[in-house]
Amino acid sequence: MAQLYDRVALIGLGLIASSMFYAMRRAGLAGEVVGYARSADTRAIAREIGLCDRVVESAAEAVKDADLVVLCVPVGAMESVAREIGPALKAGATVSDVGSVKAAVIAAVAPYLPAGVHFVPAHPLAGTEHSGPRSGFAELFDNRYTIIVPVAESDTAAVKRLEELWQGMGALTEVMDAEHHDRVLAVTSHTPHLIAYTMVGVADDLRRVTDSEVIKFSAAGFRDFTRIAASDPTMWRDVFLNNKEATLEILGRFTEELFALQRAIRRGDGDHLHAYFTRTRAIRRGIIEAGQDTDAPNFGRAPGRKE
Amino acid sequence: MAQLYDRVALIGLGLIASSMFYAMRRAGLAGEVVGYARSADTRAIAREIGLCDRVVESAAEAVKDADLVVLCVPVGAMESVAREIGPALKAGATVSDVGSVKAAVIAAVAPYLPAGVHFVPAHPLAGTEHSGPRSGFAELFDNRYTIIVPVAESDTAAVKRLEELWQGMGALTEVMDAEHHDRVLAVTSHTPHLIAYTMVGVADDLRRVTDSEVIKFSAAGFRDFTRIAASDPTMWRDVFLNNKEATLEILGRFTEELFALQRAIRRGDGDHLHAYFTRTRAIRRGIIEAGQDTDAPNFGRAPGRKE
Repeated sequence: MAQLYDRVALIGLGLIASSMFYAMRRAGLAGEVVGYARSADTRAIAREIGLCDRVVESAAEAVKDADLVVLCVPVGAMESVAREIGPALKAGATVSDVGSVKAAVIAAVAPYLPAGVHFVPAHPLAGTEHSGPRSGFAELFDNRYTIIVPVAESDTAAVKRLEELWQGMGALTEVMDAEHHDRVLAVTSHTPHLIAYTMVGVADDLRRVTDSEVIKFSAAGFRDFTRIAASDPTMWRDVFLNNKEATLEILGRFTEELFALQRAIRRGDGDHLHAYFTRTRAIRRGIIEAGQDTDAPNFGRAPGRKE
Repeated sequence: MAQLYDRVALIGLGLIASSMFYAMRRAGLAGEVVGYARSADTRAIAREIGLCDRVVESAAEAVKDADLVVLCVPVGAMESVAREIGPALKAGATVSDVGSVKAAVIAAVAPYLPAGVHFVPAHPLAGTEHSGPRSGFAELFDNRYTIIVPVAESDTAAVKRLEELWQGMGALTEVMDAEHHDRVLAVTSHTPHLIAYTMVGVADDLRRVTDSEVIKFSAAGFRDFTRIAASDPTMWRDVFLNNKEATLEILGRFTEELFALQRAIRRGDGDHLHAYFTRTRAIRRGIIEAGQDTDAPNFGRAPGRKE
């Protein structure tokens, strides 16, 4: 694949930015990649492990002469970064981000971008329970969706090039508007995360079942929740504070459904439970058919199969 | 490892029984393994794929002369199976089961077992989203816990031999009483499953977010829920109906915690959210240290790492 940007600036050097660096390098998509992180420790680690071609001491310095600037900081930090880099952006540059909510990020960033700079927000739906500059790997985005969320003023050519970048990094892409993005993600990601955090917190609070028992006997169900609930706390705090309405709406529906199932359990209504559980099984098959998960036994973590 | 039982009968031929067959054969733990399933289709499949040394036409026939009988049917079917096999059991035989709840199974099965038969309930904490006679594999129990739940009258030697069987099939074992088992499992398995079922059901109900969107964009969190919520509907219906009190108690605590987090989101209380999410992350580390999950990136499903 051909080089798409001569110079790319990554602001924030965590899981997503470091994976972007390796994925861009794998496909030769960028000339020079310049990185900046607020923490001096993170910058030192990045220099030590060769993350980015050059690591600089300020966000404004990083974006100087960059053709593409990607904001990879928690959603709550977007505004202050945008304020700092705004005056230093090159005319004709594209600014993007990787935030998990879009309407709030657009509201925070857009006012600081000068005329002649293209703003094309995006959101890669990929992650692990790990964070920080050492956690990235080139394959993170492979066959995962990245949603491109143009604003009304987004330049068509700039949108297309950013979409090509994500495809070059291995991702499938889809374009949607910010409001719809935030609603879809409230269902598929934000509310599930909140629920997983809650369940893990409940287990931790119980005193009659010891912590070590919770940990030892977590194989059946709970383990998957802990994996979700181990994600970066700052990132997730900002997600909930910035996608408040959609998350609260889905939570309301969730509670309503949960109460209906709870009532079925209390009354011993086995037919209701069986019908519900049969319906949810079909959704799982759809996900496997869509190629978004493996059908391997034991959730893909078994040492092997008999055949 | 030496042979522990001359003849083993498996009643019900789904994921657990078929995995037990392969795991016993792998380690040479049983002489002959006789199988029975209520469904003629299942029996035909078992014969076709060589599941069990012999597949017979009734549960009573299967248990004839068996030294160990393992009930691998849904919890709600335990009583009728016990009633049928009771008169056919060999004196000195051990009867066990693999049900996910224990107090209810003991209450359902024990009255039908004649004097001189040893009852040693057990529960392997292992599973996949798949079910049926074709879903088993020898490694299912490797390094997973199986909880042995003796009743007051359980013979010490019979308990020890069943524990050795499970260890021989690759499992770690732990002994606890039925009430404690049911409480631990309500936290680590039953309530998480109910919550996952609920969340997947909510997503399916939404009309403004299309089904295909839910499926396509499930990478971030929701995917893990669908995996849990794809488990066998009959098995899980019976679990909730038979571990009602412990599940309802944990659900009550869950709802209380969820409302507190919901309130923090509504009020914009970022400190509360951050502190909560930081605490849950520590639990995850404990599970990895306990060897009950992999630390691999992208939940162990990534195609590879950079190093």
